[in-house]
Amino acid sequence: MPLIQVDGPSIDTDKKRRLVKELTDVAMRIYNIQHITVLIRENQPENVGSNGQLIADKHRGE
Amino acid sequence: MPLIQVDGPSIDTDKKRRLVKELTDVAMRIYNIQHITVLIRENQPENVGSNGQLIADKHRGE
Amino acid sequence: MPLIQVDGPSIDTDKKRRLVKELTDVAMRIYNIQHITVLIRENQPENVGSNGQLIADKHRGE
Amino acid sequence: MPLIQVDGPSIDTDKKRRLVKELTDVAMRIYNIQHITVLIRENQPENVGSNGQLIADKHRGE
Amino acid sequence: MPLIQVDGPSIDTDKKRRLVKELTDVAMRIYNIQHITVLIRENQPENVGSNGQLIADKHRGE
Amino acid sequence: MPLIQVDGPSIDTDKKRRLVKELTDVAMRIYNIQHITVLIRENQPENVGSNGQLIADKHRGE
Repeated sequence: MPLIQVDGPSIDTDKKRRLVKELTDVAMRIYNIQHITVLIRENQPENVGSNGQLIADKHRGE
Repeated sequence: MPLIQVDGPSIDTDKKRRLVKELTDVAMRIYNIQHITVLIRENQPENVGSNGQLIADKHRGE
Repeated sequence: MPLIQVDGPSIDTDKKRRLVKELTDVAMRIYNIQHITVLIRENQPENVGSNGQLIADKHRGE
Repeated sequence: MPLIQVDGPSIDTDKKRRLVKELTDVAMRIYNIQHITVLIRENQPENVGSNGQLIADKHRGE
Repeated sequence: MPLIQVDGPSIDTDKKRRLVKELTDVAMRIYNIQHITVLIRENQPENVGSNGQLIADKHRGE
Repeated sequence: MPLIQVDGPSIDTDKKRRLVKELTDVAMRIYNIQHITVLIRENQPENVGSNGQLIADKHRGE
């Protein structure tokens, strides 16, 4: 602990690397704790809804 | 926020569409808040246990 | 399973009762599974951030 | 409820079977409640960060 | 990682101590990994629904 | 989405404000998405276990 769980769309490995590095830097500084764990979860657009509509359907309509 | 996270078995896209639509309708009405996010997570039967037994094993035995 | 986790602001017991009843009805119908669990989490406005700002600070400014 | 969610690396079905059985035994005994649900989530090493570094990168360097 | 999150009713400190000790023993043995984190979340009966009904209401009716 | 959930010890409001601001900045930059939600959960030391021991007990022994 602290533990940071991030739910977002799919991203490439380099972005994951930067995400883990930079989120950890922020949390270490503010909590003043060394041990930080980050879990990244990648969600398909058909598994996420915003305001009643699937993200997959929104993007199709744009 | 509010945020609704749903863990269940795999379902097809049309059921996901209805799930997001109908869960959002309920939450909007009760919380009286417009912005609702829904995350659907699909779990394989071998990743879920009920009362000490994998769902995958229960279905095999039925 | 299915499991529905809801993160929102504090609500009274009657709204929780309706939330559990109505979210369960939706999930039972769409998943066609009887056993549904709902977990409601109430979050203080100073524990939620939207677009970089605490909800607690947004409401103060309105 | 109770609900136990486990995030770890990928494991084979037999380990999942034992994990569900043994975690459930512990929780049943301590909570004195019969109905226990376990959700296992398998995380790729490039989706987990420890102390600012992806697990995928740590293993590469060892 | 692994990370174990447990949602259940309120329990006393001694039961939490045993829960953390015994869940960790199981996970260490099966994953063969030393570093295990356990998060215990205590849920009020009016924040949990089972099959459409608040746990708080079920207990009242018994 | 993206959604960032942070589990840590209790912190004061100003640290929460900075945490939300800085985690959001990182996520916006890397995902290139404007809408970011952050949920902060504060965990009592007796509800967190590390390597089989409650954090509450570790601190007592130090």
